[in-house]
Amino acid sequence: MAAPFAHPIEIRLHDTDVAGRLFFAHLFRHAHDAYESFMRSIGTPLDALIRQGDLILPLTHAEADYRRPMRHGDRVSIEVEVLELRRRSFAIGYRFLSETGDLLATARTLHVLIAEDGDATPELPAALSAALASHLSNS
Amino acid sequence: MAAPFAHPIEIRLHDTDVAGRLFFAHLFRHAHDAYESFMRSIGTPLDALIRQGDLILPLTHAEADYRRPMRHGDRVSIEVEVLELRRRSFAIGYRFLSETGDLLATARTLHVLIAEDGDATPELPAALSAALASHLSNS
Amino acid sequence: MAAPFAHPIEIRLHDTDVAGRLFFAHLFRHAHDAYESFMRSIGTPLDALIRQGDLILPLTHAEADYRRPMRHGDRVSIEVEVLELRRRSFAIGYRFLSETGDLLATARTLHVLIAEDGDATPELPAALSAALASHLSNS
Amino acid sequence: MAAPFAHPIEIRLHDTDVAGRLFFAHLFRHAHDAYESFMRSIGTPLDALIRQGDLILPLTHAEADYRRPMRHGDRVSIEVEVLELRRRSFAIGYRFLSETGDLLATARTLHVLIAEDGDATPELPAALSAALASHLSNS
Repeated sequence: MAAPFAHPIEIRLHDTDVAGRLFFAHLFRHAHDAYESFMRSIGTPLDALIRQGDLILPLTHAEADYRRPMRHGDRVSIEVEVLELRRRSFAIGYRFLSETGDLLATARTLHVLIAEDGDATPELPAALSAALASHLSNS
Repeated sequence: MAAPFAHPIEIRLHDTDVAGRLFFAHLFRHAHDAYESFMRSIGTPLDALIRQGDLILPLTHAEADYRRPMRHGDRVSIEVEVLELRRRSFAIGYRFLSETGDLLATARTLHVLIAEDGDATPELPAALSAALASHLSNS
Repeated sequence: MAAPFAHPIEIRLHDTDVAGRLFFAHLFRHAHDAYESFMRSIGTPLDALIRQGDLILPLTHAEADYRRPMRHGDRVSIEVEVLELRRRSFAIGYRFLSETGDLLATARTLHVLIAEDGDATPELPAALSAALASHLSNS
Repeated sequence: MAAPFAHPIEIRLHDTDVAGRLFFAHLFRHAHDAYESFMRSIGTPLDALIRQGDLILPLTHAEADYRRPMRHGDRVSIEVEVLELRRRSFAIGYRFLSETGDLLATARTLHVLIAEDGDATPELPAALSAALASHLSNS
């Protein structure tokens, strides 16, 4: 298996709140940015999928666990993996790591294929499934 | 002239940053929320305009002046007025007021009609112009 | 048990993305706004807690399930309940309902008391526990 | 004069709205990210300034002009320059450029030093002024 895809971020002023920490909802924005970068890296950029309109992959579940606070100026690496891969859905996992490798937070998003035209048995396109499979977590 | 349209908000945790104040860019989000409420109140809700697609009114300019800090929990009233009304554009003005009537910030957005189909001389629809005119600032 | 606390919102232009739906992370921002309104309604406004600094209640978990899309202009009611109440933590539940009562999404956030000064056995203040208990879900 | 500092961004799904373009207020978030990167590059990172608390530099004005739409997936370069430098304030300018060098938008923010302790004649620290001066626009 390849090394996990990593997306670097920096905690910006607008990510923080008056309590001095990353506002929890912004973690999901960063996770989705990492997901967009990941999808581009495996050859299926999200903007092209949405523009073509032939693949509708809404998020049906999202969750996060917050272990340590992230503060203004912190540099964080988001590791992205495919946690599950099914015929019509996949789950993406995110690990937020500090510069010293500490696990700061984890997140998970579930994406499910919707058939636009009433197709009874839609499936993920073979090319997308193959690309995702190459980043399937082995844990 | 009618009293200015007023849109009440509360400064939320995610509006603030570690410096303890409203992050400046979020003022524009609140101004646009006030604009959406204003447009609904005059009978031309923005979501309907965008869905119909027959009117494209992109923002071409935005500006704000920040006079006093807004902090978590503050209740603020945003007064909305039409500052300018032309054949193909209009400017909206916003005044952010504290509960005691202090002026906290002002903002201004400029909206310009774009002709989707190459129409040489597009104009704002008469109904929209009339609705906006009823809230034109007399200052 | 009292009727659930309800926080009304409208889906704004900035809540949507090019796919025409509420961007998933913004649901958490709305949930937290509902939580802030709820905390104020039970007499323990969050801004006062944070300013006093005597209670640190970071979010350690957040999750959401998305059932139906929310679109620009939709009016949504967020019902807030206390799902769990322990000595040092509590969980808040959120139900996003359409104007016709359809369940659009659910969310859950977990808040855990941190002892600032190394107090070995911190507990939620009795007043806060009692206020939360009055909104404990009976389901 | 040195070449302008450049901060690369990509327009993300959450930057867009249902009209398919960058939501105008998000341009200011990106401008501030570029400002943070710029301040770090000249040796005066904003997070350190805020943490030390010895320099309070609130934004008192912000404005933007939008020339061409930015869409999901677009790669944009934000050039940062110091437009004005005075004893107690400075203005930062931003130019948003497409991959082909087209000017998409411009922005400007004004930052003013506040004396925390009633100091009658506060001035920008010499080191900060010198660092900013090296990026002063010559236009």
